[in-house]
Amino acid sequence: MACQCSHPAKELSENDALVKSDDPAHPANLICELCRLFYDHGWVTGTGGGISIKKDNLIYIAPSGVQKERMLPENMFVMDHETKEYARRPEVYKPSACTPLFMSAYDLRGAGACIHTHSQAAVMCTLLYEKEFRIANIEQIKAIPKVVEAGYLGFFDTLVIPIIENTAHEEDLTDALQRAIKEYPGTTAVLVRRHGIYVWGETVWKAKVYNEAIDYLLELAVKMKGFGIPPHIGIGEEKHYVDAKIYN
Amino acid sequence: MACQCSHPAKELSENDALVKSDDPAHPANLICELCRLFYDHGWVTGTGGGISIKKDNLIYIAPSGVQKERMLPENMFVMDHETKEYARRPEVYKPSACTPLFMSAYDLRGAGACIHTHSQAAVMCTLLYEKEFRIANIEQIKAIPKVVEAGYLGFFDTLVIPIIENTAHEEDLTDALQRAIKEYPGTTAVLVRRHGIYVWGETVWKAKVYNEAIDYLLELAVKMKGFGIPPHIGIGEEKHYVDAKIYN
Amino acid sequence: MACQCSHPAKELSENDALVKSDDPAHPANLICELCRLFYDHGWVTGTGGGISIKKDNLIYIAPSGVQKERMLPENMFVMDHETKEYARRPEVYKPSACTPLFMSAYDLRGAGACIHTHSQAAVMCTLLYEKEFRIANIEQIKAIPKVVEAGYLGFFDTLVIPIIENTAHEEDLTDALQRAIKEYPGTTAVLVRRHGIYVWGETVWKAKVYNEAIDYLLELAVKMKGFGIPPHIGIGEEKHYVDAKIYN
Amino acid sequence: MACQCSHPAKELSENDALVKSDDPAHPANLICELCRLFYDHGWVTGTGGGISIKKDNLIYIAPSGVQKERMLPENMFVMDHETKEYARRPEVYKPSACTPLFMSAYDLRGAGACIHTHSQAAVMCTLLYEKEFRIANIEQIKAIPKVVEAGYLGFFDTLVIPIIENTAHEEDLTDALQRAIKEYPGTTAVLVRRHGIYVWGETVWKAKVYNEAIDYLLELAVKMKGFGIPPHIGIGEEKHYVDAKIYN
Repeated sequence: MACQCSHPAKELSENDALVKSDDPAHPANLICELCRLFYDHGWVTGTGGGISIKKDNLIYIAPSGVQKERMLPENMFVMDHETKEYARRPEVYKPSACTPLFMSAYDLRGAGACIHTHSQAAVMCTLLYEKEFRIANIEQIKAIPKVVEAGYLGFFDTLVIPIIENTAHEEDLTDALQRAIKEYPGTTAVLVRRHGIYVWGETVWKAKVYNEAIDYLLELAVKMKGFGIPPHIGIGEEKHYVDAKIYN
Repeated sequence: MACQCSHPAKELSENDALVKSDDPAHPANLICELCRLFYDHGWVTGTGGGISIKKDNLIYIAPSGVQKERMLPENMFVMDHETKEYARRPEVYKPSACTPLFMSAYDLRGAGACIHTHSQAAVMCTLLYEKEFRIANIEQIKAIPKVVEAGYLGFFDTLVIPIIENTAHEEDLTDALQRAIKEYPGTTAVLVRRHGIYVWGETVWKAKVYNEAIDYLLELAVKMKGFGIPPHIGIGEEKHYVDAKIYN
Repeated sequence: MACQCSHPAKELSENDALVKSDDPAHPANLICELCRLFYDHGWVTGTGGGISIKKDNLIYIAPSGVQKERMLPENMFVMDHETKEYARRPEVYKPSACTPLFMSAYDLRGAGACIHTHSQAAVMCTLLYEKEFRIANIEQIKAIPKVVEAGYLGFFDTLVIPIIENTAHEEDLTDALQRAIKEYPGTTAVLVRRHGIYVWGETVWKAKVYNEAIDYLLELAVKMKGFGIPPHIGIGEEKHYVDAKIYN
Repeated sequence: MACQCSHPAKELSENDALVKSDDPAHPANLICELCRLFYDHGWVTGTGGGISIKKDNLIYIAPSGVQKERMLPENMFVMDHETKEYARRPEVYKPSACTPLFMSAYDLRGAGACIHTHSQAAVMCTLLYEKEFRIANIEQIKAIPKVVEAGYLGFFDTLVIPIIENTAHEEDLTDALQRAIKEYPGTTAVLVRRHGIYVWGETVWKAKVYNEAIDYLLELAVKMKGFGIPPHIGIGEEKHYVDAKIYN
């Protein structure tokens, strides 16, 4: 999985001061800690998925094709947000193909972090919904921000997450992702058909909380559909959908 | 997620003696330990859910909107049960919207602890049952107290848990919760439609055990319904419900 | 959960030498370690289930109604197998109601350990099978001993585990369990309808391995039935049972 | 589980220098670490499954019939690849019945490691597919190597894994496994009906990543079939298979 491409001088790649810190809240440490957690969630097994955190003007990105639960701070790429140049580029790794997608969240939304997972609940929902994931009247929806204004969605609101079509190369998703971000100004996530989900937030912790809450809702939606209940119906309408022999 | 509201003087909020202890059984320590466990159960992901423990006249409550698995003792709110005044109120957090609901368990039932989760099994059961969750003739029912008298339910008993409708704001659940507590004097839990469950007990350990046993039964009920078996039927009646091609 | 009954003199109950050991393989330590593992398997949540290990003439038994994942060696009961008298009896706990059932495995089968779980896969199988659990032609069956002769079942064998009816009080299961043990001389486990399973073995490690392998098969059987496949059919017959639209 | 067969001289079996190392990346240490991980995945419970790593000319193999999550480096067998003689053979264990199967991956494919699991997703797929497992148009497929040429499968490719029939004795699988390896030159895995899966790779880490990615796809395929979606269909065809009442 070591990269075969030509790479910048050793000096740049060895810029370890950017990723070495005793502070567990340093982005390079946090990325490693969170990826171990996401691995346990089943979101990033088999090197799938990724995560990026922005701090000041620097963007930290996990490399491509590595085992997410075994990463070390020194594996991280660091990019200058303004110049889009790498401030640190480890010699033996390839930059993540997710990089332009993460950048879209930083550039178009002013995000502080962006998470990409291959969650099976996300993939299943892209097979069970056509253009948009929709769920309504579930308490956990209240953890999702309105984005277009301050505050969070309410219990009676419908959470809508756009689904874009996958492409052969991850970086080619960028156009569709940016279009979805613009067409859905209130979304903090985009689903990718038969692939997974991108979730971002103002800070790494908000991105994580949004991702956990959304994944909870995706998983619940799959279970509801398993019982014949469309997840966007009104409260009390379940009785018209669930098999009468087992309802109540 | 820091609160925007005006808050009491720093002196009150810094009353750290109430939450700093080397004793792992201290409520402030226990709340943190149990929330990490509940996170692993999938009960409190995405900041959902909460927990409160009463010790002597003091009630310890986890704050609103924080990641439950990453809490520290110094995050805790402490309320005087008699005066209903905060004895400790951390500046940067909002009190939990569950507070009046926890208080209902303390005031109406003399509980020693109250747990609130967003368990998916609980939410699914509120979609598959109308007014009450009912399950009968399962050994795990024997872990649930009779409440109205000493002792526990028996194997042949039917466990009944009332379901109340959710509201836009969690604190507005209080009236319905208190009504359910009064109408079901034998219940140690109340389900909230499309939201989750509240479980309380005489001590924190009893509340935890009741919650684990109830969640086991909620999860089992969902599986039984998946096979067409109503969870409250008599022993041996399964054969009339399960598809004959796979029964036995 | 402390016992209300009269209890033997403090001297007996404080016989700590029987349960205090630095050796992780000491039965009192092993019971605690394995119950934490079984808790993570979801087999003993909410104080359900139990375990007993025999060493020389002494039988170690976890107490009744305690949280299985939080037990300490000093919580253990110790019984002399010959005299059936307690060699150690902790004051604050009640002996496990499973005791006569564990004794059946020791007396009738010369077991070295016996495990009781409330595994949901076990309970589901008692709802989907009438008199006996049966599964055939699965590799994991090879982990199950023949019992009536040396060696293990083969891949082409059918594993049969009897199901007995549950009773109001766990100790009243003893007669039915002993009958099943005698009627099924080749079984190393007995399922209890709507309750769980008892598994025993020559040593604690064999009992654990048998239990893991059996639970794997119970769980697999539930999944097979979910797809309409009876778990005891011949190899290749699946195609006659699985919906043609999704087979292959 | 101790072996009853005659065994080589103690000197050979005590060749501890081959398995004692402070380096966590030493094969004897890695096998133990990975088997604990695979146990948590549910792949090797009840002593099922196994793993082998090749380093230089030496092949390290976990013994037969041991608890995979409790192994120690000194339990390992070590075989000289050239001579096929054991360089180390622990007295109390039997060599793994998987040995000739692991050797097939080393001999026919030049593998660096081979993993065998009893994953339930793998077993379920062998019940839901006839001759080959097939899945297409899922991002995670991109983690699987083409084998016959450099590089990995693409998103639009169909992953095909052959299924061979199980035999009474694991070593008798060798012929069928070798035939499948030759008939499917592009595969890095072989499924065994009602048994599990063999996955190999150029290094232990690649074998692990391939196994995780394949297991993710097996699990996803089972979920898709649960909703009536054949896993190999074209993108967008789901709508023709999913129940119209719940699609979208």
